[in-house]
Amino acid sequence: MADRVLVPPLNFAMVEPGVYRSGYPNKKNFPFLKKLGLKSVMYICEDDYTDENLRFWDETGVRVFHVRVAGNKEPFGEIDEADIADALSKVLSVDNQPILLHCNKGKHRVGCLVGCLRKLQRWSLAAIFDEYRRFSGSKMHIADQEFIEVFDAPPPQPAPAAAAA
Amino acid sequence: MADRVLVPPLNFAMVEPGVYRSGYPNKKNFPFLKKLGLKSVMYICEDDYTDENLRFWDETGVRVFHVRVAGNKEPFGEIDEADIADALSKVLSVDNQPILLHCNKGKHRVGCLVGCLRKLQRWSLAAIFDEYRRFSGSKMHIADQEFIEVFDAPPPQPAPAAAAA
Repeated sequence: MADRVLVPPLNFAMVEPGVYRSGYPNKKNFPFLKKLGLKSVMYICEDDYTDENLRFWDETGVRVFHVRVAGNKEPFGEIDEADIADALSKVLSVDNQPILLHCNKGKHRVGCLVGCLRKLQRWSLAAIFDEYRRFSGSKMHIADQEFIEVFDAPPPQPAPAAAAA
Repeated sequence: MADRVLVPPLNFAMVEPGVYRSGYPNKKNFPFLKKLGLKSVMYICEDDYTDENLRFWDETGVRVFHVRVAGNKEPFGEIDEADIADALSKVLSVDNQPILLHCNKGKHRVGCLVGCLRKLQRWSLAAIFDEYRRFSGSKMHIADQEFIEVFDAPPPQPAPAAAAA
């Protein structure tokens, strides 16, 4: 039985067709991840990747985007809006999809990135914050929600189907 | 601005390519729902649908599946496993996709159905329950989780891509 069960990474979910989100994947998640047929992965964290993960992505032919940003930390730290805009343009490039976006817990940095994606899709802020909270639980950062609210970069290219005007 | 913002239904999310979940959609969600290009909708509730919703689905050419089941209520009420197996076969039929599954809050009945879908995909129970809890919040029903755990219907037909062996 044990080897038949598939273990998704922490906080795993679909965001859009071709876009997944999660916390940091580790060895026990590899069989599950193989089934997603990923073309690329985006790791949003200032820390280095583990060798084990780098080897796994290399072996499975998955391109790695490492976005080295620290999270929003009141009152001094703030993610650079340009970094997120640049990351979004990679996420929305169909050539990179299917893509998995992950940070460590799948709560804050990925929550910010997905929140900004929802803004491009013109989702109501109430719905964006609700989705953010679903993954952060009680660990929600108001600074993240403020970041999403003021984020106003123009879409670098056509957003996914649900966003089309 | 007001007419440019899109309002997804309560607890809206993607489950799999071609499968969405949410709470009960109402008029303010219609512009958002139109963009999903749905082929069908599954309403999982013993109550009648509102005329407004029936008219909307009719006008947009969306087929309605009404699964009239009451939720799991300890100690006397329990969803019939055969009803869920039948519903799943409709959800997994590519002819019906994209499909939106909804109940009233998008927590319990839809949570059960999605949990059973994850079992077909061989997700670990820990991941299934975590996803269930993400939508139910503090209103989680242990009876729902027990229902998912014991559910053991064979897949009525090939499950979505992520489930393929």
